[in-house]
Amino acid sequence: MKIALLQTRSPAGNRAAALEALVPALNAAGAAGAALLVTPETFLPGYNVADPAPLALTRAEALELVAPLCRVAGCGLVLGYAERGEGVTHNAALAVDATGAELAHYRKIQLYGPREKALYAAGDAYATFALGQVTVALLICYDAEFAPHIAALRGRGVGLLCVPTANMMPFTHVSRATIPANAANGAMTIVYANFCGAEGDLAYAGHSVIAGPHGEVVAAAGDGPALLIAEIPQPDLARLYDPGADYRKVT
Amino acid sequence: MKIALLQTRSPAGNRAAALEALVPALNAAGAAGAALLVTPETFLPGYNVADPAPLALTRAEALELVAPLCRVAGCGLVLGYAERGEGVTHNAALAVDATGAELAHYRKIQLYGPREKALYAAGDAYATFALGQVTVALLICYDAEFAPHIAALRGRGVGLLCVPTANMMPFTHVSRATIPANAANGAMTIVYANFCGAEGDLAYAGHSVIAGPHGEVVAAAGDGPALLIAEIPQPDLARLYDPGADYRKVT
Repeated sequence: MKIALLQTRSPAGNRAAALEALVPALNAAGAAGAALLVTPETFLPGYNVADPAPLALTRAEALELVAPLCRVAGCGLVLGYAERGEGVTHNAALAVDATGAELAHYRKIQLYGPREKALYAAGDAYATFALGQVTVALLICYDAEFAPHIAALRGRGVGLLCVPTANMMPFTHVSRATIPANAANGAMTIVYANFCGAEGDLAYAGHSVIAGPHGEVVAAAGDGPALLIAEIPQPDLARLYDPGADYRKVT
Repeated sequence: MKIALLQTRSPAGNRAAALEALVPALNAAGAAGAALLVTPETFLPGYNVADPAPLALTRAEALELVAPLCRVAGCGLVLGYAERGEGVTHNAALAVDATGAELAHYRKIQLYGPREKALYAAGDAYATFALGQVTVALLICYDAEFAPHIAALRGRGVGLLCVPTANMMPFTHVSRATIPANAANGAMTIVYANFCGAEGDLAYAGHSVIAGPHGEVVAAAGDGPALLIAEIPQPDLARLYDPGADYRKVT
C-alpha cells in the first residue's frame, strides 16, 4: 500500500490558497496509486492564525468540503483542520477514503504550549481504522513524541500512523530522531507531514518524514514544498527486537 | 566538562586484551582533559561470552582493578562489567573518579532477550552522582531505549547519562534515532558507548554516539575502533520545548 505526504506552506487563513496546494497534490497522489494523502496540522485554516475559531469548520462541513476532492482524485485524505465543536475549537484530523466516506476523526490530545492550550480543547480518545490489511491511527504533532501514545497504539495493532504536524524551528530533532525512534519502538510506519516556510513569528522546520518500522527513513522532504509518495514497508518480524519487552518500573 | 567514549572490539573473555585497549584510551582521555571515559557493556570480560559467571568480578575486585588505572591517567571511568553478586551475576557499571574513588554503581534493569535473562539478575535501582555541576546517571544498553527511564532520570535532574552498550546489527536505529530522541526528550547529554566488530554469532553495530540535549550529534563513531572526546553541551533553556509537558493518559 502506498501513502502520500504533502509538505507545503501554511495557508495562513486563506482557504483558496489551501485548496490550490491540496487539490493537485491529491490528484497526483491518486494517480500514483496512494491510498491516503496526509496534510500538515490545521491545514485548514493554517496553523499560526491569531484565532482559528472564526475560521473553524464543523466535522460535517470539513467532510462536505473534501469528500468530492477525494472522489475526483481517487485518493483518501488525512486532513488537519480546526474543528468547530460544542462551544470549543479542536485541533482535529479527519480521515476520508477515496470514495469520500469518513474513515475516522481525531482530536489532538497533547496540546503544545500556552498558545494551543488557549485556543483549543484537548481530545481524549485515539482514532483507528482499517485500510486494507493495515490498522491505521491518527495523532497530531506533539502527540507523536510521547512514547506512551506510541505504545498504546502498538497495543491496538497499529501498523501505520498518520501525523499532521506543524513543527517549528529549532526542533529539528523531531523529524531526524524522535519520529524514526518511535516508529522503530512501535514497529509501525509513521507519516509525519509538516509545513515549510514561515508564517508570522514561526519558521517551520520542514523535513517531513515517512519512517518505517525499523526506524529507517522511507522518504524525507527538505526545507521546501514536497509531495512524498512511497510504499509502506512491511516489518521484518525476525528483525524486530524483543517485541514483548516490558518496561520495569523502578521506584 | 569533557567526556570520553571508547568504541572497541569485545575482549571476548580475555582480560589482558581488555586492558590493552582500555589503558591507552584512558590515558589519552585524561591527557585531553576528560572527566570520565565510558566503556561498552560488560567490557570485562566481554559481552558475548558463553558464561560470564566464572569470569565475573565482585564490585570490590572491579574497583581494585581500575582505581590505579584512573589515578595514573588522571581520568574517571564508567566500566561495564559482569559483577559477581550474592549467588547471581549482574550486568553492572562502576563509575570511578580520577582519584580512583567509587562514584556510583549500577545494575542493568532491562535485560535484553532470553540470553541475558538467563545469565543475569536484573537491577532494581537507578544510580546518580554529582560531577562538578552536573548530575550524572548510569544506564546500560537496552535501559536507555525506554522513555520512562529517561523521564525518571530527568525528574532527578540528570544532565549527563553514561550508557555502556552492546548494540548489535541490525538495530542501527538506536544510535541514529532512539538515543538522540531520548537525549532531546530528557534535555540531557547521552554517551552511548558500543562495541564494534564481531564476537561469535554477534555483529556489533558500532556507531557509538554522544547526543546532546537538543538531539544533536556531538560526536559519533563509525564501524571501527574509536575514542571520542567532546565537551558536554549546555542545554539552551530557551530552546527546550515545553519542558513541563505532561503526558495525558487516554483510556
